[in-house]
Amino acid sequence: MMKTVVKDLFRKQDEFGGKEITVSGWIRNIRISKNFGFIELNDGTFFKNLQIVIESDKLDNFAELSKLNIAAAITATGTLVLTPDAKQPFELKAENVVIDGESTPDYPLQKKRHSFEYLRTVAHLRPRTNTFSAVFRVRSMIAYAIHQFFQERGFVYVHTPIITASDCEGAGEMFQVTTLDLNNVPKNDDGTVDYSQDFFGKQANLTVSGQLNVETYCMAFRNVYTFGPTFRAENSNTTRHAAEFWMIEPEIAFADLKDDMELAEDMLKYIINYCLENAPEEMQFFNQFIDKELLDRLNHVVNSEFAHVTYTEAVNILIEDSKAGKVKFDNKVEWGCDLQTEHERYLTEQVFKRPLFVTDYPKEIKAFYMKLNDDQKTVAAMDLLVPGVGEIIGGSQREENYDVLVERMKELGLKEEDYNFYLDLRRYGTNKHAGFGLGFERAVMYITGVSNIRDVLPFPRTVGTAEY
Amino acid sequence: MMKTVVKDLFRKQDEFGGKEITVSGWIRNIRISKNFGFIELNDGTFFKNLQIVIESDKLDNFAELSKLNIAAAITATGTLVLTPDAKQPFELKAENVVIDGESTPDYPLQKKRHSFEYLRTVAHLRPRTNTFSAVFRVRSMIAYAIHQFFQERGFVYVHTPIITASDCEGAGEMFQVTTLDLNNVPKNDDGTVDYSQDFFGKQANLTVSGQLNVETYCMAFRNVYTFGPTFRAENSNTTRHAAEFWMIEPEIAFADLKDDMELAEDMLKYIINYCLENAPEEMQFFNQFIDKELLDRLNHVVNSEFAHVTYTEAVNILIEDSKAGKVKFDNKVEWGCDLQTEHERYLTEQVFKRPLFVTDYPKEIKAFYMKLNDDQKTVAAMDLLVPGVGEIIGGSQREENYDVLVERMKELGLKEEDYNFYLDLRRYGTNKHAGFGLGFERAVMYITGVSNIRDVLPFPRTVGTAEY
Repeated sequence: MMKTVVKDLFRKQDEFGGKEITVSGWIRNIRISKNFGFIELNDGTFFKNLQIVIESDKLDNFAELSKLNIAAAITATGTLVLTPDAKQPFELKAENVVIDGESTPDYPLQKKRHSFEYLRTVAHLRPRTNTFSAVFRVRSMIAYAIHQFFQERGFVYVHTPIITASDCEGAGEMFQVTTLDLNNVPKNDDGTVDYSQDFFGKQANLTVSGQLNVETYCMAFRNVYTFGPTFRAENSNTTRHAAEFWMIEPEIAFADLKDDMELAEDMLKYIINYCLENAPEEMQFFNQFIDKELLDRLNHVVNSEFAHVTYTEAVNILIEDSKAGKVKFDNKVEWGCDLQTEHERYLTEQVFKRPLFVTDYPKEIKAFYMKLNDDQKTVAAMDLLVPGVGEIIGGSQREENYDVLVERMKELGLKEEDYNFYLDLRRYGTNKHAGFGLGFERAVMYITGVSNIRDVLPFPRTVGTAEY
Repeated sequence: MMKTVVKDLFRKQDEFGGKEITVSGWIRNIRISKNFGFIELNDGTFFKNLQIVIESDKLDNFAELSKLNIAAAITATGTLVLTPDAKQPFELKAENVVIDGESTPDYPLQKKRHSFEYLRTVAHLRPRTNTFSAVFRVRSMIAYAIHQFFQERGFVYVHTPIITASDCEGAGEMFQVTTLDLNNVPKNDDGTVDYSQDFFGKQANLTVSGQLNVETYCMAFRNVYTFGPTFRAENSNTTRHAAEFWMIEPEIAFADLKDDMELAEDMLKYIINYCLENAPEEMQFFNQFIDKELLDRLNHVVNSEFAHVTYTEAVNILIEDSKAGKVKFDNKVEWGCDLQTEHERYLTEQVFKRPLFVTDYPKEIKAFYMKLNDDQKTVAAMDLLVPGVGEIIGGSQREENYDVLVERMKELGLKEEDYNFYLDLRRYGTNKHAGFGLGFERAVMYITGVSNIRDVLPFPRTVGTAEY
């Protein structure tokens, strides 16, 4: 017997009205009167529930059904009746209901509102709630929209390595990956760890970025992107940081910072539109229960041209507005400092009132590979700031000139021999190129309005937490 | 100035004939006569090269251009001339050529055939060769086809965690993830490692499978899949194993082993068709230079119904054919043994001559969570074997009965408390469900004909190797 999915009932209800169908799913709510009852069934394919009517004179097992608890799994056959005048658009008059799996009264998600904190303690069950079924379905859609955006434009998806023995960027806090026995670490004669006995024959870590790797593929395929997990062993406990998160890093050849910003703007608009079109029920729900300004904000983003300002101009604005008493910051601003979230949000929310690219940062606060501008003081970097969040994307044009790049590495004490493969890209057919990084969870938070990164990761990994 | 990409020239040549265009790319070959020359340009967007004609009387920098080496990056403007009678369908008569980045005569990929072994030592440059540009473009397409297949069917993509503190399945060789200082591992009073000081407060490893995690999402969304990196610290040096690889794990609720096999068959056919349609040039190339039977085999797979045989029947066939002298195996077959690649390939290539599902394996050689059949001896497992490779997919129906699952865990000495979240799925709304795992690199090898896993991973990680 072909089973019908609830999504099809809602999307194509005219096809199913008056027909006999069979559905399977889980009970979200059950109300029983003497001779009849209502079951709210969610089958996982759609945000909304199907109402099933059960009647004692039609169902031999009515007594058994009326004792079912929330979360029980059932398979129901009956006629779909359109109910244009009722609250729900249709209901299933059950003629047969099979119990696949029961539940118990101690089911941890009873019919009441639970706090997000509590729901994190039942991460294996929380996708069964309205909020998290919406969050994680939209997360899946955003992931797919990103692939679709890049693939439609001919970008090649590159799986950069997760385990890496090259400590690129010297990027601070990394997780070490090892097969050595920590109870008995083998040592060299001088007392240091004998990594020749480790799996890779040397110290290895979890990647903090695939960028340097993916640049090599950019020089073969022109337009490429990564989409994979990334790791930071930072001992910080904020609502915006996780030890394990996913990142998207496109890289484009024969392209400059302007092309890079156009790509970022097009991508962000594309994925927002994708969610608005494909998950209207979920987006409505977020707007109602998570963030009342969400849809206004997203619609505004989709329909506005993003603004542009240089770092130097932005710093001047922040200093002037502080002096004029228009705003008060916890952190003082001066040329050369890194912008803090309060500054970023002020610029995008109060000054420009739309997404904002800040460009041309001082070289001292940016990575070695960013293209040095003619002023010799700033680099062709860009951060994209969005209202409600602050920075969501960071990128740059890359230094394609071999001599300038080597000079910059020397300034920072980086060893040429550690970056030979990267320098090869400047030896053999170098060209203007650029790229950016989008923190995937930041994008999910931005589009759903959810404010804690722990609530957009299926099983979040943070300091002290690696359950499930 | 809008740049044209070479892919568009080949796919829509009528639109471009006689037009002035600008292209950017890398020189794959250059031949210079006295007053004119030919440049084969690859711009990364397409497998084939664009021929550019340069002439001394049209180009001021002809002398400079004629000294260019392979891999130099240039930007050329000129008229695209259709050449229906020539070897190539069109050529660009250059009116202006800018050199973006030179190359040198010591460029490691000169115009000759290099061995795959050599090319592995220049993994950052090998995507610039014909073979690897084809392999990695098709790899990208297969990844996208997999997402498209599942998303079109309403499956929710779940990012299961990479770092895990639950040692599920007790699956052998895992990589440990730590922030402890290996030079000075903190110890408890009893001499064991003090994991309370480690980042997660306990021992953590890299995942070997997302299945148990994704089952929890299956019970919320009905149809789900993972697609992420997976790790095995096995000290084996074969052409089919890497320490880091990608895996796809769909899981479907209210579904049995039959549904699972249908899904696997549909998926495999879908991704093969996707490559045949979207990468005809690359597939032709593989057929000509990598495996002369590739297209025959793949077309056969797409057009045949996959065969089915039980493990017990398969073992009988192998024993009978051995006895009859039809075949000689290195490894003896008897009921209860695991099938070896030689057995698998004999079954799919010689006996059934098409993809083959082997089902209902002895429970002793399969995982604890697989559904026990009524015979109490076998489980509802399936392996999909394909000609030329052997096993490409492994899956099963899952044990949905709480009591049977707990009994099975006891038999194997698994502790209930370690699997509480997994057992919850059987406490609250359990139902028939099933899933499988597809090794992504195995699929890429199968579809490209490439026989070493190191040649389908951008930067392979194997024992002793984690370069780049």
